[in-house]
Amino acid sequence: MTANVNAHSQYVVGVDFGTLSGRAVVVRVADGAEVGTAVYEYRHGVIENRLPGSDIALGPAWALQAPSNWRDVLRNAVPEAVATAGISVDDVIGIGTDFTACTVLPTLADGTPLCEVRGMWFRPHAWPKLWKHHAAQPQADRINALAEERGEPWLPRYGGRISSEWQFAKALQVLEEDPETYRRADRWIEAADWIIWQLTGVETRNVCTAGYKGIHTEDGYPSREYLEALNPAFGDFIAKLEHPLSPLGGLAGRLTTEAAALTGLPAGIAVAVGNVDAHVTAAAADAVRPGQLVAIMGTSTCHVMSSEQLAEVPGMCGVVKDGIVDGLWGYEAGQSAVGDIFGWFVDTAVPREYHEEAQRRGESVHDHLASLAEQQAVGRHGLIALDWHNGNRSVLVDHDLSAVVIGQTLETKPEDTYRALIEATAFGTRTILDAFDKSGVPVNEFIVAGGLLKNRLVMQIYADVLRRPLSVISSAQGPALGSAIHAAVAAGTYPDVPSAAAAMGGRTEAAFVPDPDRADMYDRLYAEYRDLHDYFAGERHGGSGVLHRLRALRNEVAK
Amino acid sequence: MTANVNAHSQYVVGVDFGTLSGRAVVVRVADGAEVGTAVYEYRHGVIENRLPGSDIALGPAWALQAPSNWRDVLRNAVPEAVATAGISVDDVIGIGTDFTACTVLPTLADGTPLCEVRGMWFRPHAWPKLWKHHAAQPQADRINALAEERGEPWLPRYGGRISSEWQFAKALQVLEEDPETYRRADRWIEAADWIIWQLTGVETRNVCTAGYKGIHTEDGYPSREYLEALNPAFGDFIAKLEHPLSPLGGLAGRLTTEAAALTGLPAGIAVAVGNVDAHVTAAAADAVRPGQLVAIMGTSTCHVMSSEQLAEVPGMCGVVKDGIVDGLWGYEAGQSAVGDIFGWFVDTAVPREYHEEAQRRGESVHDHLASLAEQQAVGRHGLIALDWHNGNRSVLVDHDLSAVVIGQTLETKPEDTYRALIEATAFGTRTILDAFDKSGVPVNEFIVAGGLLKNRLVMQIYADVLRRPLSVISSAQGPALGSAIHAAVAAGTYPDVPSAAAAMGGRTEAAFVPDPDRADMYDRLYAEYRDLHDYFAGERHGGSGVLHRLRALRNEVAK
Repeated sequence: MTANVNAHSQYVVGVDFGTLSGRAVVVRVADGAEVGTAVYEYRHGVIENRLPGSDIALGPAWALQAPSNWRDVLRNAVPEAVATAGISVDDVIGIGTDFTACTVLPTLADGTPLCEVRGMWFRPHAWPKLWKHHAAQPQADRINALAEERGEPWLPRYGGRISSEWQFAKALQVLEEDPETYRRADRWIEAADWIIWQLTGVETRNVCTAGYKGIHTEDGYPSREYLEALNPAFGDFIAKLEHPLSPLGGLAGRLTTEAAALTGLPAGIAVAVGNVDAHVTAAAADAVRPGQLVAIMGTSTCHVMSSEQLAEVPGMCGVVKDGIVDGLWGYEAGQSAVGDIFGWFVDTAVPREYHEEAQRRGESVHDHLASLAEQQAVGRHGLIALDWHNGNRSVLVDHDLSAVVIGQTLETKPEDTYRALIEATAFGTRTILDAFDKSGVPVNEFIVAGGLLKNRLVMQIYADVLRRPLSVISSAQGPALGSAIHAAVAAGTYPDVPSAAAAMGGRTEAAFVPDPDRADMYDRLYAEYRDLHDYFAGERHGGSGVLHRLRALRNEVAK
Repeated sequence: MTANVNAHSQYVVGVDFGTLSGRAVVVRVADGAEVGTAVYEYRHGVIENRLPGSDIALGPAWALQAPSNWRDVLRNAVPEAVATAGISVDDVIGIGTDFTACTVLPTLADGTPLCEVRGMWFRPHAWPKLWKHHAAQPQADRINALAEERGEPWLPRYGGRISSEWQFAKALQVLEEDPETYRRADRWIEAADWIIWQLTGVETRNVCTAGYKGIHTEDGYPSREYLEALNPAFGDFIAKLEHPLSPLGGLAGRLTTEAAALTGLPAGIAVAVGNVDAHVTAAAADAVRPGQLVAIMGTSTCHVMSSEQLAEVPGMCGVVKDGIVDGLWGYEAGQSAVGDIFGWFVDTAVPREYHEEAQRRGESVHDHLASLAEQQAVGRHGLIALDWHNGNRSVLVDHDLSAVVIGQTLETKPEDTYRALIEATAFGTRTILDAFDKSGVPVNEFIVAGGLLKNRLVMQIYADVLRRPLSVISSAQGPALGSAIHAAVAAGTYPDVPSAAAAMGGRTEAAFVPDPDRADMYDRLYAEYRDLHDYFAGERHGGSGVLHRLRALRNEVAK
């Protein structure tokens, strides 16, 4: 660790652009102390039904955002965080940001969002598409089918499946549904990079989103031939992306006078290269060394880990060189629903008396169920579930799968099923760790970040199921802190992200430790989970295709 | 049909002894018109915790009844039913009864219940054991293991498994836990026969309970050697049972003066041989011919059907000569939970808003769920369930199985699962019908009786899944009417039960008819159900033993 002598009086600002709001945090460079924070909620939130202030309706599964909302975060949250910190703004030496991804937008050559171009705002395709815009599924299906047919070399890097959420599917949807907007888009850029353009006045592109969301590998982007085979007019798409890529923690540029006026920060301070919320969290947890897997557990779970090895691990969202930390292979895996499953259960399957009892006790229904469930011996409820309520990303990469629960009796209580669902997600995580281990990419430490961290029952079950101690991130605002750490590197205070993370980030090791007896019982249940997993994964995996047939039947009658 | 000329002014009384109450109905002999009815609730209901008016505690899974409560039905409900009928009591020519089974008690040689013998009432084992007394499971397990080991010829008649609810398991429990009471019991008799003893003053035994609950076949009772191998002191057990068996619809005797005083009926009228609630219902539905299967659908479902053929159909509760109708083989099959599953779901898995909305609409939660579920196209919910929440009686005879639900997503709603559970029980019924067909015992007509009859969604789903029209019983008090029909035969008005049933019983044919399109879809789903059925039925059936291992684990940690 090499710290600049002025680090004690120097600060950086990290800004985390989330789905509904942006958060700014002011962090002391020397030790990562979070001295000020502010949150700004997007005025338009997620735009799902019609364009703001209009009757222009969006289709099903659309999800847009407004660039002006992002600027408002810079305008409001940043100065407020500095103010609450009670520091002199002149002591701020850099700013870093992270964004949801893939959140992507079409712009003019100067970075102007097309939705802000005169005569374009009423075109839905001119607006930024939020990560959870799912209307490009038909395009994604064609992208995957053609890539598989042609044996495109990049496909295995992405677990054999490009998501409808990513850059290519979304852009192809624009081309095919609004060719005029596609034509007007000089650039097609991640919001993670667009926000940096606003701060520095120059376009940059980061290796992380290019790799994980833009199908960029050592061989570059997909070939023109492939793109033209998708759609003859799509052959020029790479021209809208092409740009030198910048390393994470690198200096993207200097804060412009305009951006200084917007944020209240000094002009000329360092601006870090753009980054992604999940990926910067690894730095905030000081978990950027090979084999340190960070699980950001919330509605879904994202697993990020760096390694010296390049291997084909089944079901990855992506394997990207320098994708999390410069110099290492970055692996990203995912579970497509975790907290969402518990939320769905509480919303749809918990009877009135439980809500009333929770109210009487002054606790949430989640906490009430957890307090009942945590008293149980492992195996007492007699249940096993498969956590596929939103399909399975890792390791099966199959969105058409659905969930399974076995073992109910007339004595089964809500807390039994609640516990079984938590266990199912833990078994899902263990399946991912097993895949890493089997592929020769060892996982040495499991670090938890994200909202589920607060649920002690979930944490203890994970420790017992994984049969390993859990480390937990120290900061409650991991992404913003991670962005601040990247800012400190960009500002030159630290030579690289790992040393900055060591000084500024932090985690508690062994915050939860497995109980050997419970872990033994879970070994038996996990063996059953894996059998069910393989049986229901489909015929390709030697099991039954029943879940696929049920899905096909559902789609058939839904028409 | 041969009717006595006086039939228009003659009446019979049927009395149905249920789990919580007894019901008397006055029926016109000529046409089965139900002209008067009365219900009497047992003062002590089901005795599960302690003996009435005492601190004497019962063990877990115990369930007793008080003989005095049964006498009170005769004393109260019978005269009240006659009074509401507004007929002259002198026009009553017979009485018939049916009982839950196996509900069984120890008595002195004169029929006095042991619990009413001085100095015996405080012994729990001196009391009648209700059908759902489940504390003799260890004895049942030994009965089955030994019978299987010795290859006892009667075992296949009972689907390979004697229930803990039946006479032998319950008696063996008495012997082993209270030998003194066992020794004092001169007789061990079904309540169905004991109540006839009270009416006629003489002991009789009916073929139905002897066959279905007492392991009596053409070869008699199990051998002394077998019983002594179970427990050396059990060798004399048959002496407590042995008695000539009387045919159903036969004349058990004449109403004694004492019983006439108790009931207000004329002394000397015909008393029919004792019978069982499910079995008499076939007569009430006029469904006693070969191939007419009557499904009494309530908390569980009992299927009774007569046939000219004797065959080994998998998973029967029993196959008994003359067991339902004299001269035919009586088959009884069962689904161990049906309405109980829907009730469990409503009690434990339906959220607050559904209860509130049902309340607003002034309907039950069941009806509210049904109204939402019935709008769905078949297959729309994407779910399949196995209806094994209380194990599986027919066709697997496996109480250690438990339920399965597959296909849930974050969009799955309570009405989806509710519908899937109804469908699962229909698939379970179809599995039983298939077993009959495959065994060469054809099912020509499917007749529904019981409480679930009122649920139109359930009925329509059954018609569609079974791909056959459903007949439904006409009477709302099937068992009591069935008993009255048997009384009319005993009184000599009709020569046999089928002709009495034709005149007095009734059903609506094709009350629900299958929709061919829905039936086609259900064929596809049923194929999936059968695959899952076989997979989860266990290793013996070529599938996975996971449900058994989960049950074993549950039992292991519950200790």
